[in-house]
Amino acid sequence: MEDLLKRIVSDCAPYKTLGKAASYIPELSYSNTEDLGITVATVDGKIYSAGDFDKPFTVQSIIKPVILLRALMDKGVEAVESIVGIESTGKPFDTFNYSDRALRVEHINPMINAGAIALCTLIDGRDGQEKFSRLLALARTISGNDNLKVDEAVYASEREAGSKNRALAYMLKTYKIIDGDIEDILDIYFHACSTLADCRDLAKMALVFANHGNVNGVQIMPKKYARYVNAVMSVCGMYDGSGEFALRVGIPAKSGVGGGIMATVPSKMGIGIFSPALDGKGNSVAGVEAVKRLSEALDLSIF
Amino acid sequence: MEDLLKRIVSDCAPYKTLGKAASYIPELSYSNTEDLGITVATVDGKIYSAGDFDKPFTVQSIIKPVILLRALMDKGVEAVESIVGIESTGKPFDTFNYSDRALRVEHINPMINAGAIALCTLIDGRDGQEKFSRLLALARTISGNDNLKVDEAVYASEREAGSKNRALAYMLKTYKIIDGDIEDILDIYFHACSTLADCRDLAKMALVFANHGNVNGVQIMPKKYARYVNAVMSVCGMYDGSGEFALRVGIPAKSGVGGGIMATVPSKMGIGIFSPALDGKGNSVAGVEAVKRLSEALDLSIF
Amino acid sequence: MEDLLKRIVSDCAPYKTLGKAASYIPELSYSNTEDLGITVATVDGKIYSAGDFDKPFTVQSIIKPVILLRALMDKGVEAVESIVGIESTGKPFDTFNYSDRALRVEHINPMINAGAIALCTLIDGRDGQEKFSRLLALARTISGNDNLKVDEAVYASEREAGSKNRALAYMLKTYKIIDGDIEDILDIYFHACSTLADCRDLAKMALVFANHGNVNGVQIMPKKYARYVNAVMSVCGMYDGSGEFALRVGIPAKSGVGGGIMATVPSKMGIGIFSPALDGKGNSVAGVEAVKRLSEALDLSIF
Amino acid sequence: MEDLLKRIVSDCAPYKTLGKAASYIPELSYSNTEDLGITVATVDGKIYSAGDFDKPFTVQSIIKPVILLRALMDKGVEAVESIVGIESTGKPFDTFNYSDRALRVEHINPMINAGAIALCTLIDGRDGQEKFSRLLALARTISGNDNLKVDEAVYASEREAGSKNRALAYMLKTYKIIDGDIEDILDIYFHACSTLADCRDLAKMALVFANHGNVNGVQIMPKKYARYVNAVMSVCGMYDGSGEFALRVGIPAKSGVGGGIMATVPSKMGIGIFSPALDGKGNSVAGVEAVKRLSEALDLSIF
Repeated sequence: MEDLLKRIVSDCAPYKTLGKAASYIPELSYSNTEDLGITVATVDGKIYSAGDFDKPFTVQSIIKPVILLRALMDKGVEAVESIVGIESTGKPFDTFNYSDRALRVEHINPMINAGAIALCTLIDGRDGQEKFSRLLALARTISGNDNLKVDEAVYASEREAGSKNRALAYMLKTYKIIDGDIEDILDIYFHACSTLADCRDLAKMALVFANHGNVNGVQIMPKKYARYVNAVMSVCGMYDGSGEFALRVGIPAKSGVGGGIMATVPSKMGIGIFSPALDGKGNSVAGVEAVKRLSEALDLSIF
Repeated sequence: MEDLLKRIVSDCAPYKTLGKAASYIPELSYSNTEDLGITVATVDGKIYSAGDFDKPFTVQSIIKPVILLRALMDKGVEAVESIVGIESTGKPFDTFNYSDRALRVEHINPMINAGAIALCTLIDGRDGQEKFSRLLALARTISGNDNLKVDEAVYASEREAGSKNRALAYMLKTYKIIDGDIEDILDIYFHACSTLADCRDLAKMALVFANHGNVNGVQIMPKKYARYVNAVMSVCGMYDGSGEFALRVGIPAKSGVGGGIMATVPSKMGIGIFSPALDGKGNSVAGVEAVKRLSEALDLSIF
Repeated sequence: MEDLLKRIVSDCAPYKTLGKAASYIPELSYSNTEDLGITVATVDGKIYSAGDFDKPFTVQSIIKPVILLRALMDKGVEAVESIVGIESTGKPFDTFNYSDRALRVEHINPMINAGAIALCTLIDGRDGQEKFSRLLALARTISGNDNLKVDEAVYASEREAGSKNRALAYMLKTYKIIDGDIEDILDIYFHACSTLADCRDLAKMALVFANHGNVNGVQIMPKKYARYVNAVMSVCGMYDGSGEFALRVGIPAKSGVGGGIMATVPSKMGIGIFSPALDGKGNSVAGVEAVKRLSEALDLSIF
Repeated sequence: MEDLLKRIVSDCAPYKTLGKAASYIPELSYSNTEDLGITVATVDGKIYSAGDFDKPFTVQSIIKPVILLRALMDKGVEAVESIVGIESTGKPFDTFNYSDRALRVEHINPMINAGAIALCTLIDGRDGQEKFSRLLALARTISGNDNLKVDEAVYASEREAGSKNRALAYMLKTYKIIDGDIEDILDIYFHACSTLADCRDLAKMALVFANHGNVNGVQIMPKKYARYVNAVMSVCGMYDGSGEFALRVGIPAKSGVGGGIMATVPSKMGIGIFSPALDGKGNSVAGVEAVKRLSEALDLSIF
């Protein structure tokens, strides 16, 4: 397996030059687009890595499945589905509206910004700080890494540059999908997106979903929540490239503009990938290629 | 003329019951939907009124033509058209976006909220307070009423309830159509919408536009700016009922959710109307009927 | 006046090179983009012309106001408004739908293809041939030119290339806005668009609308129908450049992709212009500039 | 297994009353909404059935995966993806357009009408009749039923009532996504939708996709085509209820307005279900509930 991963990292090198790092905040634009790392964590407890698997990056949208899981664990399916829909929107992740009329719950899903921001309001906690702490604690539990922490410089930049997320949040408030102080809610979200992780963290998080919530024999969440997250990632985890990803790779996955991809092969393995150069849809170019080759080599498609 | 106005006020009474007062803030919902007033100010200096012409109400969107005029006078046509378009959007006044993609200048116009908020940034002044002072001063000049002032309770409510306008403003900032502190910019807009006026004020403001900027022999603005405002009102002054208003009434006009309508008959007269019960598009029901009957009786259509 | 027209034709010559002839059918692409003609017909019976005023071209969309008038005269306002709306759509003239949901009457207007095709079904007549004959007869009456006829080669090409109009027509049928044999209905429309006219014909047609239906002392249509047509042209006669045209020119007008513009100055004059090079919205570049200069020179804006 | 199927058929009976049969053509409205049948065909060659499993119905949209397969087998992936996209549209299956602008390939997918009609043009054959024959032959091969045939009455009605599909097809032609005689192309599609099948036929067709193209040891299509079809069904096979279906059921599936559902559990089984009462999205109410219960009982979710 390690040979395979090394070969994939080597063979996918040319793809790094086909994209470019996110640039909406300075910190992301400084990313080294030469980086490419991959980790596979299997259900029998093995970990295999190659390339820049130990370089930390901000998870960005990859935190969305964790926000969804936190909301499911804190408030249940019904509460979640009262404020987010579960259909693909057919639109980019940060699109403003989805019809000519009022914003409706069915127009947003947990994998787009508006949906993830809405779900932050479902996390238990007296205030924004406690809510984020509980979210981070969950991320630490499923990654098995108690040192996961926020990159404060990225957080500050996200907050500074967050006009679009503010617009989305005020839109959610306008249509009474959420309530409360918008800056407080966004603070949870900006912190969450700025959480640092490496390929191993992502692979181990993905493994928990692949294991349907079972961590070393302990069921840390209902099996149905793990499947819920896997299904949602499959439908809309790769932005508006989710359909193509299903066809070419066939594995539930979530990408982030930091260059990471977390992919779950149910009952088999978790995969974490990192390469900062993005395609036009916001997915890591070399990362998508790497997981595609891994899927083909190991016949991982769920279809 | 006064007999005609009285008859119109009397005949339009049944229409008051066909709509309802705006309810998004408490102050507007308290409006007396029995009120109906009208004032006509002619180019030869006569003023005719009937009904509740002297009851004050907040101008709301009727301030938009004044914001447009202020921006034109302070920065000129080119600057205005660099941040707002001049086509009808074919959408409600507070719609979020106008295409599936990026917000573009051509998707907004000065008579919808997004456009008016954008234009507030073009008003000269060191800070928001001075900008609003200069806007209010212009409103006082063209209405000839130095006592025009803000209803502080309505202002406070507008600010409190302003999620949608905040969403629109952050959206404008996202697409770099405006820049600066959003709350400062919105403060100008919320103050502007909360300005109190009565039918006489509106009629006299409209008269200045009808007179193409000439007030008692003094040209207080270039003729082309008056025409600019009249044309923009004709295209999109009555929200997404502008086309129907052009057909049925044929006079450039702007309505507000406070129940007011300001209508300009070029080279002939200015008209101010007030009746708080609104139709589904946000226009005063009895007010539209009254100006329609006035237009028919005096053959005022510009078409 | 004739000197003015000559000067305008001369001064607007550079604008001919800023656009290009329509190319969706071969016949239009063969147009001589050097052509520029103008005719003014005043309410006191004078006719002034300059440039290529006597070169015939196909009226294309300029027939839409005539279709609207024919439908109004045959079936009345209520029937017309049961199948077309009267708001600007904020969309290009041949856009497919106007919301994410069902097509509704309010999403189309008489100046876009879908609306004009729908209105063809309201023309009296046993069959398509008789309906078109009655439409052509009306065009002849208001232009005062009994020789108006169809360019058969253009008609054949329009029919051949008419996929989009077929799609629009079947869409209208899908939503039960129209019924009947689609090819029969489109045949009226394709014939109508292929009618040949020159600047004099357009100016005289426009004059009838400017005169509110009065031709040599005879009221050939109710005054309100003329105003209806003028208002509709003002709102959406220049495609999605109607707002800009209102601001810059201020005259109700209708353009066609053949390069013609018919403009109506209520109570004053009718204007016919021809120059085949179009801008991106489908309006004649030199033609728009010419009518703008004429409006400024004679202070013709209705605003 | 048969006991389970019988219990599901029995337990899902109440759901039959929660929907209603399609009514856009008379033949479908005559369907007996009391019908509910199910067949499971497993990879080890067993067939289990319950309820009205042997009642024939028209497959309608369930033919779309077969059209996609036929196009893939005749022209390959590249040709297919040159005329259809593979993302969920986030819109109902028969929506007209997907943006304010030109129709683009990425706006359609093989599981919506526009995409399936487009793919009909890729089927090999000298004329429409031969193309449909080859499509039907493929359906017979994968269902193992040489008697599959068209319901001529339904076909006639589909053709008669096909305004929306005509509109879609002319739209595709307008944007040069397809070419040729529209009625000829639609004739293939109308025939295809009117093909009769029963639950056993659907289950056996699904089994071939579950077996990745292997039929009794013979690979009748490349494995990757089977996965392609399964992935596309997963993303958008259940109209705009595909996301919810992924969450609740977790099996690639395609439904038709005739009341059928074909569901594929990769490497495990094919499922055919029939019950004519539909929900608002066009999916069989009792059918969806039945496959959901089957998935839960046998832990079939792929996520």
